Amino acid sequence: MLTITKCYSFSAAHRLWNAALSSEENEQAFGMCIRTHGHNYKLEVTVMGLPDPVTGMIINLPVLDAIVQEVILTHVDHRFLEQDVPFLKDVLTTVENVVVIFFERLQPAIPEPARLFRVRLFESDQNWAEAVAQDSI
Amino acid sequence: MLTITKCYSFSAAHRLWNAALSSEENEQAFGMCIRTHGHNYKLEVTVMGLPDPVTGMIINLPVLDAIVQEVILTHVDHRFLEQDVPFLKDVLTTVENVVVIFFERLQPAIPEPARLFRVRLFESDQNWAEAVAQDSI
Amino acid sequence: MLTITKCYSFSAAHRLWNAALSSEENEQAFGMCIRTHGHNYKLEVTVMGLPDPVTGMIINLPVLDAIVQEVILTHVDHRFLEQDVPFLKDVLTTVENVVVIFFERLQPAIPEPARLFRVRLFESDQNWAEAVAQDSI
Amino acid sequence: MLTITKCYSFSAAHRLWNAALSSEENEQAFGMCIRTHGHNYKLEVTVMGLPDPVTGMIINLPVLDAIVQEVILTHVDHRFLEQDVPFLKDVLTTVENVVVIFFERLQPAIPEPARLFRVRLFESDQNWAEAVAQDSI
Amino acid sequence: MLTITKCYSFSAAHRLWNAALSSEENEQAFGMCIRTHGHNYKLEVTVMGLPDPVTGMIINLPVLDAIVQEVILTHVDHRFLEQDVPFLKDVLTTVENVVVIFFERLQPAIPEPARLFRVRLFESDQNWAEAVAQDSI
Amino acid sequence: MLTITKCYSFSAAHRLWNAALSSEENEQAFGMCIRTHGHNYKLEVTVMGLPDPVTGMIINLPVLDAIVQEVILTHVDHRFLEQDVPFLKDVLTTVENVVVIFFERLQPAIPEPARLFRVRLFESDQNWAEAVAQDSI
Repeated sequence: MLTITKCYSFSAAHRLWNAALSSEENEQAFGMCIRTHGHNYKLEVTVMGLPDPVTGMIINLPVLDAIVQEVILTHVDHRFLEQDVPFLKDVLTTVENVVVIFFERLQPAIPEPARLFRVRLFESDQNWAEAVAQDSI
Repeated sequence: MLTITKCYSFSAAHRLWNAALSSEENEQAFGMCIRTHGHNYKLEVTVMGLPDPVTGMIINLPVLDAIVQEVILTHVDHRFLEQDVPFLKDVLTTVENVVVIFFERLQPAIPEPARLFRVRLFESDQNWAEAVAQDSI
Repeated sequence: MLTITKCYSFSAAHRLWNAALSSEENEQAFGMCIRTHGHNYKLEVTVMGLPDPVTGMIINLPVLDAIVQEVILTHVDHRFLEQDVPFLKDVLTTVENVVVIFFERLQPAIPEPARLFRVRLFESDQNWAEAVAQDSI
Repeated sequence: MLTITKCYSFSAAHRLWNAALSSEENEQAFGMCIRTHGHNYKLEVTVMGLPDPVTGMIINLPVLDAIVQEVILTHVDHRFLEQDVPFLKDVLTTVENVVVIFFERLQPAIPEPARLFRVRLFESDQNWAEAVAQDSI
Repeated sequence: MLTITKCYSFSAAHRLWNAALSSEENEQAFGMCIRTHGHNYKLEVTVMGLPDPVTGMIINLPVLDAIVQEVILTHVDHRFLEQDVPFLKDVLTTVENVVVIFFERLQPAIPEPARLFRVRLFESDQNWAEAVAQDSI
Repeated sequence: MLTITKCYSFSAAHRLWNAALSSEENEQAFGMCIRTHGHNYKLEVTVMGLPDPVTGMIINLPVLDAIVQEVILTHVDHRFLEQDVPFLKDVLTTVENVVVIFFERLQPAIPEPARLFRVRLFESDQNWAEAVAQDSI
């Protein structure tokens, strides 16, 4: 199995707050993440496939860059995730929930025969979530 | 000259907006930083001095940790800088302005004979500001 | 498949020495690792599952932190592995052997429906071992 | 499943140019990579197996070091890949193509019962390719 | 003293060869660096000054980006340093020599009242050179 | 001012214990560092000077490597600092004390006209000490 990975980054504000819970329940569930804060997110996008015989590439990285820019980065970079991003409205923006949404947006955008294999989203160097294509493993 | 450095981190939201400027002037000056976003800030605090003969330390790091926690981190971690932090109210929170304020708060808190030498504040791995004590160089 | 990963660190001393071997055999097998030395170990714990609908989390990270602290870190941080740690007594503390023991200690401690997926233990930035749950792949 | 990983690095020059294409087609396919440039490549070699009962190791890292040195590094370090390296002559040295060739060279060199599991080749911190043994997953 | 630093990167090929020396002398002086190879160079540019009262910035980073792009990066990124770069022709491209040339090109390009304080050039994470303005220290 | 820096690493065990203090005083001063533990130390050695006109180098890095190996690394790598290293016997091995001793050992070993400018010793990515030549600043 062969993959290529490209790493992106964006800066965003967010908070964790579930409107269906009381203030006490929110604080118990999310601690100080109920306060508006932010991260330098790092996003790793991994595509699987075979190298094209002419270019030697699974996917041309400038092509992947343009996809990730259009599908993800332009919407989330320098944004307040829950407030500014249409596809994150009313979403609890845990790193798990966000990485799944990013995966679902990216998967149909990758041109065949390449396929999206994995998306990793780092909230910091110390914690991250990872979504892997189910038919790939 | 001898120094000891300890590295801290905090996550915060901010935006750059000067109320004395028009919207167009703000956008020209600050670009997409006029939108609420956030960072994993990294803070390096450097203290100069001589090692204490009994402990071999310029400053005991748990002591430094407690100072930085009380003077800086408890106020800014998981906060919206301009909105939530009393000493950053009405401040344009560029990394230059913030590092100067952090330096000025930390300097009187370092117990003698140690002295604050330098504070570095990283907005990301790619850009940071640094304030150095004037009488140290 | 979805996972969340949290990164921990600890500092420990160790040496590699098999009491069943002669000094020459130990030196041949382990080189300068027969001498007492130490590392800043880095430990990555990866948990798989589905985000809880209420919290958006596979596992609440403070819960995971408390588990890793109790099951691993409190025993090994600032310790001499073979001498001080009951569950590493008489163990040849190669990074492979230690990561398996950490995996076996962590696996039953992860609260359902989340499941331990992977444990990575870094002796340095240049070498690490990784144990992956067999039923996960 | 248990693996051990060791990280290596080398510096090399390369360019992307397909002699079967016109200059315009090359520039369209490869952009500024048609110009001679270079990288600090990072190479991660991952070996799977069970720890030897006597040594506690899947593979002794100095043994792995010698294999990687002989099979890969001595040929590519401080070289112009397409011009100087016999097994990369006439190869389009995309990171995908090179990682496959490295995998194929390393796989038969790993002494049983250990087996090569994965090779990752980083052109930079921002992009890398990864080849995984097909029978391992 | 207050500074702001921005980090850039570029990929380039080079070799060390002094035409005034014999082959043996070149090999003795430069070892395997006499062979064409390459690096992911990292460039840190540090500017000193006072924050502008209106913008809170020593220098607006997009302005600095444009300067570094025009004065340095456009000339050296994806290039063979000694062959392709007019201002490095006939230069022995040690990291010391290159950082001095970069410093001299950048210094007059920084708009007053800001001043260039320091340029660091990393050939790798393990070695770098640093040029500091003489009147700054 | 121009400098060149090279980065080294070594793994060592140590503990902090002042024989002139009681057990309670030691624990109060050094916390859990009174227990035998260890680190992957990182050592940055910075040399100042002018590039040699023939080689373009302040100091040839293989020469610096040999000096650091002989003066420092061979004594401390894979060692128990207070027990195994003659020049650290009876020394309280705080990172401040050790960096001063390293500086004093390295300074006379650097061949003129180059001069030792700075030594940085990292106990971890989060804390380090730095000794700078007094006549250099």
